Amino acid sequence: MKACTLVIFGGTGDLTKRKLIPAVYHLVCDRKQLQNFRVLAVGRRPKTDDLFRSEIREDLKNDAGLQLTDKQWADLSPLLFYETLDFAADTDGYVRLEDRICHMERDEDINARLYYLAVGPEHFTGIVQNLSDKGMVGRDNGECFRRVLVEKPFGTSLQDATALNRHLVSLLDEKDIFRVDHYLGKEMLQNILAVRFGNAVFEPLWNHRHIDHVKIISNEILGVGGRGGYFDHAGVLKDMVQNHLLQMLALIAMEPPVQLDPESIRNEKVKVLQALRPFTSASAKTDLIRGQYGKGDIMNAEGDVQHLAAYRSEDRVDPQSVTETFIFLKTWVDNLRWGGVPFYLVSGKRMRRKETTIVIQFKPLSGMQPYPEFGNTAANRLVFNIQPREGFHFAVNGKSPETDWAMEEVIMEYCQSCRIDNNSPEAYERLILEAYRNNASLFARWDELYHSWRFIDGIHQIWQTETPKFPNYAAGGDGPETPLPDDVWNEDYRSCD
Amino acid sequence: MKACTLVIFGGTGDLTKRKLIPAVYHLVCDRKQLQNFRVLAVGRRPKTDDLFRSEIREDLKNDAGLQLTDKQWADLSPLLFYETLDFAADTDGYVRLEDRICHMERDEDINARLYYLAVGPEHFTGIVQNLSDKGMVGRDNGECFRRVLVEKPFGTSLQDATALNRHLVSLLDEKDIFRVDHYLGKEMLQNILAVRFGNAVFEPLWNHRHIDHVKIISNEILGVGGRGGYFDHAGVLKDMVQNHLLQMLALIAMEPPVQLDPESIRNEKVKVLQALRPFTSASAKTDLIRGQYGKGDIMNAEGDVQHLAAYRSEDRVDPQSVTETFIFLKTWVDNLRWGGVPFYLVSGKRMRRKETTIVIQFKPLSGMQPYPEFGNTAANRLVFNIQPREGFHFAVNGKSPETDWAMEEVIMEYCQSCRIDNNSPEAYERLILEAYRNNASLFARWDELYHSWRFIDGIHQIWQTETPKFPNYAAGGDGPETPLPDDVWNEDYRSCD
Repeated sequence: MKACTLVIFGGTGDLTKRKLIPAVYHLVCDRKQLQNFRVLAVGRRPKTDDLFRSEIREDLKNDAGLQLTDKQWADLSPLLFYETLDFAADTDGYVRLEDRICHMERDEDINARLYYLAVGPEHFTGIVQNLSDKGMVGRDNGECFRRVLVEKPFGTSLQDATALNRHLVSLLDEKDIFRVDHYLGKEMLQNILAVRFGNAVFEPLWNHRHIDHVKIISNEILGVGGRGGYFDHAGVLKDMVQNHLLQMLALIAMEPPVQLDPESIRNEKVKVLQALRPFTSASAKTDLIRGQYGKGDIMNAEGDVQHLAAYRSEDRVDPQSVTETFIFLKTWVDNLRWGGVPFYLVSGKRMRRKETTIVIQFKPLSGMQPYPEFGNTAANRLVFNIQPREGFHFAVNGKSPETDWAMEEVIMEYCQSCRIDNNSPEAYERLILEAYRNNASLFARWDELYHSWRFIDGIHQIWQTETPKFPNYAAGGDGPETPLPDDVWNEDYRSCD
Repeated sequence: MKACTLVIFGGTGDLTKRKLIPAVYHLVCDRKQLQNFRVLAVGRRPKTDDLFRSEIREDLKNDAGLQLTDKQWADLSPLLFYETLDFAADTDGYVRLEDRICHMERDEDINARLYYLAVGPEHFTGIVQNLSDKGMVGRDNGECFRRVLVEKPFGTSLQDATALNRHLVSLLDEKDIFRVDHYLGKEMLQNILAVRFGNAVFEPLWNHRHIDHVKIISNEILGVGGRGGYFDHAGVLKDMVQNHLLQMLALIAMEPPVQLDPESIRNEKVKVLQALRPFTSASAKTDLIRGQYGKGDIMNAEGDVQHLAAYRSEDRVDPQSVTETFIFLKTWVDNLRWGGVPFYLVSGKRMRRKETTIVIQFKPLSGMQPYPEFGNTAANRLVFNIQPREGFHFAVNGKSPETDWAMEEVIMEYCQSCRIDNNSPEAYERLILEAYRNNASLFARWDELYHSWRFIDGIHQIWQTETPKFPNYAAGGDGPETPLPDDVWNEDYRSCD
């Protein structure tokens, strides 16, 4: 296996300590899926390797909940290095960085690099420009690659994303650009394609003749926390829908790809995003609902009431902010497979429950209830639990025991989280591994982003014509009222805990 | 609720103490689904009510595993009565029996009767003739019914069953004849129709385009035990296939009934039995396999080897017997829905495992394996567990966690047995209750029996042309070799125990 250096810009940031270093630990030390793998964290603050290492060990424990034994730490620690560089201002410093990396590569016969841009989006082009100017990117003979992983947000609008992309592709080969959407690294998202295309029974049902609607929901209990400065300029539409929710929609709605290679998969996903029906001011009135949380009370695990602040009182948030922390969209994929099937997207912060769930709701029994004895049976549902629980289940109707024909909904469940051998990798593990393996299917291609931004921009243009009445939902609740079909699924169901 | 007497001919027999009295206890005392309900057990041996009651209390404990507390017994005991009658020889005794029943009815305002013929089939016509001669059947004004429940076997051949039926219908209204097939009283069998017709997702898949084959399996660990005298003249084809397995096949294969009333359901079931393709001597050579167990060794729960006798050494079995204790049939339902879909029926005694299971095996992915990355995925299966476990599950393919596209079979399971509120009634409870309610859908109509006997007779005619080489499988094993597709389902899977 060829060796590799992961060069992290933003090497002392939150993402590095909470996600990237733990991912490297699991990949290299635990699962041993990568060998000869090193991390070079790049940060502004002057630090020795030793200081970085001792700080990161504490960070892993406090911020990532990863408490390593001395033996485990002895495995991980020698893989971690630090280079001080003001990556925004110190252009000459990149020469030193290149020297450092070359030195590491010579010592260890390391010959491939992943540059991970775990920094604010304002730094993306500057860093890549410097990497390009100093000849630190572009080489690729298979053995010796230079790939650049770009974190979200990839732009803040269609125009902005287009400019960013134009800059990147002027400096890098498209094949070397890995646009991160960490949801694509989640086990259950990959499982969607496996379930859809690895079973003969689902494809015949997977269309407008049998499916009534699809719900894609990603809610959080948390508010914006320390991210107020970023979030107040983004909002949940850009922060969640533009990337994660539209990616999930594309996986559910896409046609079968010719092959399972990255380009074939992304060819089909982009067709879905292209077929999204743009909002009009008319459809936005009924099918688009934004919200912002006010203060609210919740009961914590100890049974005490906890007061939650309103969004506008959060740290680094404009007290008059009209940024949305909740969104509901009723949208349509205008193609032959999905004609007439609404896709409901919902995402909110400070909601009652943390969950990411996809519900495929089938049509009710054809046209009528053929047998009155059955009563009002629920329509069938196939539900993917993406997180925190992982699994999928089919909600169907069965006869209630001890009755004649009284029907009740029963759950046929596959609970991946419940498996004793369950050890799903974290999304970032998967992303680092797949970038190393050159499997771009877990990363967004530019045309996917183009079409999703076009869709999102259309919504923002409509929003600019009116000022929302915020706040309009209480923190810790169910969000503002929406026309989401209330065929409630029993999310509390679980065969084992 | 109108009151009722259950008159059991064979009132001291095995069925009475193991099934019928326990069923009455649960129906009347426990679930309280019947009120003013009495049992009059009719037997040859002279006995007082008191003696019968004290004997039956012991029998319930020893033979039915139903140990009643004094309080429970105080509820059940006053409902039980006994009448001495040699029901075969003592024609005049029926006058005394009628007097006794009338007396009970007068005392208690009881006005409806279920006669349960829990006796050998040689007694069916004699008893019914006597009931008819003495005017004890035939009245029915809704309030005051006289229904006759006829236990299996309903005849031993097409000719014999036809004669029996002709006799019964000459004395009774068809609507008063309840031909018992206790499998029809099982919760999961009733659930087949609920699942098939109460869900929108199954009907589109329920045909030859999507289903590859169906397996209906009913195996027992036990041998013939004390039933050798009866069984050696029947064999598993008549004892299990003619009734239970063909009834299950009919429920799986039937078209949707117009309504859920008994006649509509049985109209559709009979069409399936009518469409069964008869065996020819050519098809019998490959698609019909009979077996008889020889001796065998099994390991009991304590880990000790237990020696099992060969069938021919069992009590009251002909030492040269050619009676089959195992059967395999590959059969076809020749109609538009099921063209080209084999139905495999398997039933054996002295098999490794006790189970009654129906497997709906879907076709493999269409025509090819579109994605080589998926490897050889298993075809999807919907499995009904009839007994001893109750439930159903879908076996589908999902992505193995931590892999790229490696697929594994995962089980989406609804385990009815695992429910904390599970309390499925025993089949005989259901049968007594439904006969009381005049719900004949759980009983076989004559035309169903006619067509199943015709099918069975065809097999017996072929068998008479050659002598099987018995024994051909070891007790406690898997039966003789058959062409049953070995897409093994993981029967050991269970989400909770």
